[in-house]
Amino acid sequence: MPIVEMVEYENAEGVVREVYDDIMATRGIDSVPNFWKTIASHPPTLARTWASVKEVMAPGRLDALTKEMIAIAVSATNNCEYCIWSHGAAARKLGMDDEMLGELMAVVGMFNETNRLANGYRVEVDEVYLRG
Amino acid sequence: MPIVEMVEYENAEGVVREVYDDIMATRGIDSVPNFWKTIASHPPTLARTWASVKEVMAPGRLDALTKEMIAIAVSATNNCEYCIWSHGAAARKLGMDDEMLGELMAVVGMFNETNRLANGYRVEVDEVYLRG
Amino acid sequence: MPIVEMVEYENAEGVVREVYDDIMATRGIDSVPNFWKTIASHPPTLARTWASVKEVMAPGRLDALTKEMIAIAVSATNNCEYCIWSHGAAARKLGMDDEMLGELMAVVGMFNETNRLANGYRVEVDEVYLRG
Amino acid sequence: MPIVEMVEYENAEGVVREVYDDIMATRGIDSVPNFWKTIASHPPTLARTWASVKEVMAPGRLDALTKEMIAIAVSATNNCEYCIWSHGAAARKLGMDDEMLGELMAVVGMFNETNRLANGYRVEVDEVYLRG
Amino acid sequence: MPIVEMVEYENAEGVVREVYDDIMATRGIDSVPNFWKTIASHPPTLARTWASVKEVMAPGRLDALTKEMIAIAVSATNNCEYCIWSHGAAARKLGMDDEMLGELMAVVGMFNETNRLANGYRVEVDEVYLRG
Amino acid sequence: MPIVEMVEYENAEGVVREVYDDIMATRGIDSVPNFWKTIASHPPTLARTWASVKEVMAPGRLDALTKEMIAIAVSATNNCEYCIWSHGAAARKLGMDDEMLGELMAVVGMFNETNRLANGYRVEVDEVYLRG
Repeated sequence: MPIVEMVEYENAEGVVREVYDDIMATRGIDSVPNFWKTIASHPPTLARTWASVKEVMAPGRLDALTKEMIAIAVSATNNCEYCIWSHGAAARKLGMDDEMLGELMAVVGMFNETNRLANGYRVEVDEVYLRG
Repeated sequence: MPIVEMVEYENAEGVVREVYDDIMATRGIDSVPNFWKTIASHPPTLARTWASVKEVMAPGRLDALTKEMIAIAVSATNNCEYCIWSHGAAARKLGMDDEMLGELMAVVGMFNETNRLANGYRVEVDEVYLRG
Repeated sequence: MPIVEMVEYENAEGVVREVYDDIMATRGIDSVPNFWKTIASHPPTLARTWASVKEVMAPGRLDALTKEMIAIAVSATNNCEYCIWSHGAAARKLGMDDEMLGELMAVVGMFNETNRLANGYRVEVDEVYLRG
Repeated sequence: MPIVEMVEYENAEGVVREVYDDIMATRGIDSVPNFWKTIASHPPTLARTWASVKEVMAPGRLDALTKEMIAIAVSATNNCEYCIWSHGAAARKLGMDDEMLGELMAVVGMFNETNRLANGYRVEVDEVYLRG
Repeated sequence: MPIVEMVEYENAEGVVREVYDDIMATRGIDSVPNFWKTIASHPPTLARTWASVKEVMAPGRLDALTKEMIAIAVSATNNCEYCIWSHGAAARKLGMDDEMLGELMAVVGMFNETNRLANGYRVEVDEVYLRG
Repeated sequence: MPIVEMVEYENAEGVVREVYDDIMATRGIDSVPNFWKTIASHPPTLARTWASVKEVMAPGRLDALTKEMIAIAVSATNNCEYCIWSHGAAARKLGMDDEMLGELMAVVGMFNETNRLANGYRVEVDEVYLRG
């Protein structure tokens, strides 16, 4: 249950309605996901966040699936249930199957482990890495 | 400075020496990075961690560069200085340039933001994501 | 569901009963919130934590609402569902509306993002900040 | 040391130069902080991040100092050295002294503690908080 | 609800079946916990993770209960609901009662607090600690 | 470098001086560690934190070494450099050697990994754990 009331499409006005329409058109979906309806309780956050996500997730030098998998990696590290479900769904639409998810989770798990070994033991950065 | 003494190659014996040789052969490098020399202070951790990292980072359904970039995403989220430098170096060897790194960091930053919006507002998972 | 049994008011004795009474008197409420009933399974933790929270959250140079909003910022960053709900409720009682919450969440989200850009790129601290 | 080369003002062109000029004008400073010179290695990230930070940190229902203190709370929780220094400096300019910082850090510390007690014991959210 | 389908024992083949049998034999239980049935959607992750957990959690210089309590400390810090429940149960079987859990949680809470005070204030490491 | 000026012993007055004397007497040391001299910039935080740490770290049902190792587990998970060094030193004084540290770090690393597998895959808690 969200800590604010969601703004439903039929009650959306002005910039909120515009953003909602752009989300559905850009994503090719016919309803607005809860994330956007929730942050719409603060319209400037809705508008800014959507503009940023739209720009950042557009395919560039990294393709759309790679970006979605990085989003899952971050969300699993931070334990964001909503984000794991929504970006898991997005990645599956783009072709991710259980085996690819398995490799992704294996890397995420492994580096959450080695990050703590490196930080915990205070491992010193090798000169060769710093020289680039 | 590490909180234990590193095991230098010339002092490495038994399983530690074997792992060191395998690291250098597998990676095509001629010295052992500090991470491995540090965790070698506990040989079972060295042996197990190297076996796991070697298996997890081998190209599979995800290619080596994608895996390295996921490693960077996790390490930037967790703030592991050593891991950012070492996997940054590995990714660059595999072709990552500043523009690709920029897109990677943009996704990492963005989802660290949206993770908190989703968690902070307690956004409810959409039925459509749960149905898969 | 908590991993220990909560101590209900009618079963509370000694220091637990005293703390419960002080919580209700200080907060002007007529039942003990689950957080306190749960940590009461270890009375010294209940007593110490309540004494600390009472001292820390008392208005000082920062007013009560600012302190509650900082509590929400920390809890959203760490994903503590209970704390988001309880301090969200406390902040609303002190006057926080959806717009103020929106600005708060916007700052929380933004700095979770820029923290990772700064840590991920290993940005060097400017001399001018260190000189104070 | 950053993992990319910083873009110095004299080498900045196009959108980078424009953003640099806007940062200095908006903040009333005469050099560009390292954070911006570092993320300028990916101009779209520089432009988008600056536009977002400028919008989010502008005084609104929360004043500038409150926003800076929330930024410090998030940065201390996440251990972002750069951000602690830069927003610490910004907050001091706006009037934060050691006593206010002390109260801020006390709240940050306390909720990092109680967040773990609530999450670790799996405390159940009180009905009264959910009803709002 | 998991984001993949769990592999039930009766459908488990090859390495998955072998790991399942080893888990039940090693732990002295007669059904496979959900964690293993879920990661079995990627058999190499199941096999590797079980081998590592089995090795790491075996009594050594630290006894089994101490290891389980460290697992709880990490899981409470990271907010892993599943891990808190499963390792809570394991620790109770090994003798942990509410008072021991209370002391454990008190230490976990306290150091999540002091970690932020030390990181937030940028406390400098004392020479005496570095000299060992 | 800390973001406030440390309060040296010779300048300490009132409650700060009392706490300093108690720290040195309790710990059997003849100088005040930087952590305490730094948070002394806000005397109420110094007094409250010392009282809490002194109570929490006193041997009880868990012995002093177990408590120090839990402190290291939390600090490695959160990447608190100061805390790793200071509690590493304390644990060594109490008998922790490289092998015990190795087992500790192995558990810390492993659960930072499995926490993300459990959270990332959204593993469902087994009924048997909930029934206790």
